[in-house]
Amino acid sequence: MTYCLGLLMEAGLVLAADSRTNAGVDYVSSYRKVFDFSLPGERVLYILTSGNLSVTQAVINLLRQDLVNEADNLHTLPSLYAACRYIGSKLRTVEEQDRPILERDNIDYSVNLIVAGQFRGEDPGLFLVYTQGNFIQATEETPFLQIGETKYGKPILDRAFNFATGLREAAMCALLSMDSTMISNISVGSPVDLIVYERDRLRISHHCRFNESDPFWVDMRRAWSQALVDAFANLPALPLPD
Amino acid sequence: MTYCLGLLMEAGLVLAADSRTNAGVDYVSSYRKVFDFSLPGERVLYILTSGNLSVTQAVINLLRQDLVNEADNLHTLPSLYAACRYIGSKLRTVEEQDRPILERDNIDYSVNLIVAGQFRGEDPGLFLVYTQGNFIQATEETPFLQIGETKYGKPILDRAFNFATGLREAAMCALLSMDSTMISNISVGSPVDLIVYERDRLRISHHCRFNESDPFWVDMRRAWSQALVDAFANLPALPLPD
Repeated sequence: MTYCLGLLMEAGLVLAADSRTNAGVDYVSSYRKVFDFSLPGERVLYILTSGNLSVTQAVINLLRQDLVNEADNLHTLPSLYAACRYIGSKLRTVEEQDRPILERDNIDYSVNLIVAGQFRGEDPGLFLVYTQGNFIQATEETPFLQIGETKYGKPILDRAFNFATGLREAAMCALLSMDSTMISNISVGSPVDLIVYERDRLRISHHCRFNESDPFWVDMRRAWSQALVDAFANLPALPLPD
Repeated sequence: MTYCLGLLMEAGLVLAADSRTNAGVDYVSSYRKVFDFSLPGERVLYILTSGNLSVTQAVINLLRQDLVNEADNLHTLPSLYAACRYIGSKLRTVEEQDRPILERDNIDYSVNLIVAGQFRGEDPGLFLVYTQGNFIQATEETPFLQIGETKYGKPILDRAFNFATGLREAAMCALLSMDSTMISNISVGSPVDLIVYERDRLRISHHCRFNESDPFWVDMRRAWSQALVDAFANLPALPLPD
């Protein structure tokens, strides 16, 4: 399984992804799920992937080939929206080709992509591309998008994140959302990629990788658990007669 | 959808259930999912239900009929384990009868039950009965069981609950787990049933219902959200260069 999320804010973008891939519980391996197609100074463009690994790798490959071989590619298309349409069309190409064969053997061919970035002259944008190549866009009212194992990490975002959240706070939200998922589901695992993008810089601000054994991660997990315990103590008393 | 959970502790049991049932988004209604088969002073026995409503109602009906008509019933069986076997057999009876018809129209006939309580002379016990009538038991290492929409409310339990947790704290864990699920998934809704059972009392300690608009619930949600915001402020600083 996989967990990737994208957060869209007034202040910019935060992206996070785990690195675990599994085909059954006895074949677990680590794959990068974050792909950078930025042209620093001109456009920032990241793709995060979940789902069938052979399909997502094929799509990323086609996108890379086109950078060299085609006039229309992720470095030349005029808008983030056009880029999503184009990414969706590549996904359709791969699905057309592989789906009948995979379907015949009941192999799940579905994939989801998060596409995020900012093109010069545009606002930052955050998209979720479906298996079918269609896509939706994050908005001020729905400022985060998740793919993969999405449920465990959603409550913390619902409670603590919105479009006005600052970049550092949003980054912490993303890491805690990831940590909640990793604690509750062993098929989501470290290292975790974290990308922080400050609006209008047109180059990525930070791209870090955290391991679950990193001192920061250990401290964060311990501090958060302790904070929850403390928070409990300050909740209103449950109205139970003694 | 539904969310029910059971917590097993040294100190006793806590159970919680929402009350929302939906057949599609345009037919949402409220049903009680908690059924009390206790004999105060002799045995405490609760059943919480999720899944196909016609199946769970049929099972509860059979269990009630047997209280009057059969020698072996939930008031006479010698152990909580035997009670689970018997409940599983009733579930099999209903599934045998309805499954072919439901299956033909692609109607989901699956159900899950939580069975919890304490029989005189036994320890408190907590079980999860599957559609097929087989079941598993909570243990000191795995002290909580969930049915229905289980993922949103799992992280808080993974972090804050264990077998040594006290009854009041466990009850708050259960309510927060329920609240996380209700915030993230509109198909889980109030009122929420909360049952608190103190070990060896052989009668239920508290059974309360909370509405989302109850002052306590509103206060709890606000206090928890504020506590999370405060907890953020005390987390270790994210190691990002400025």
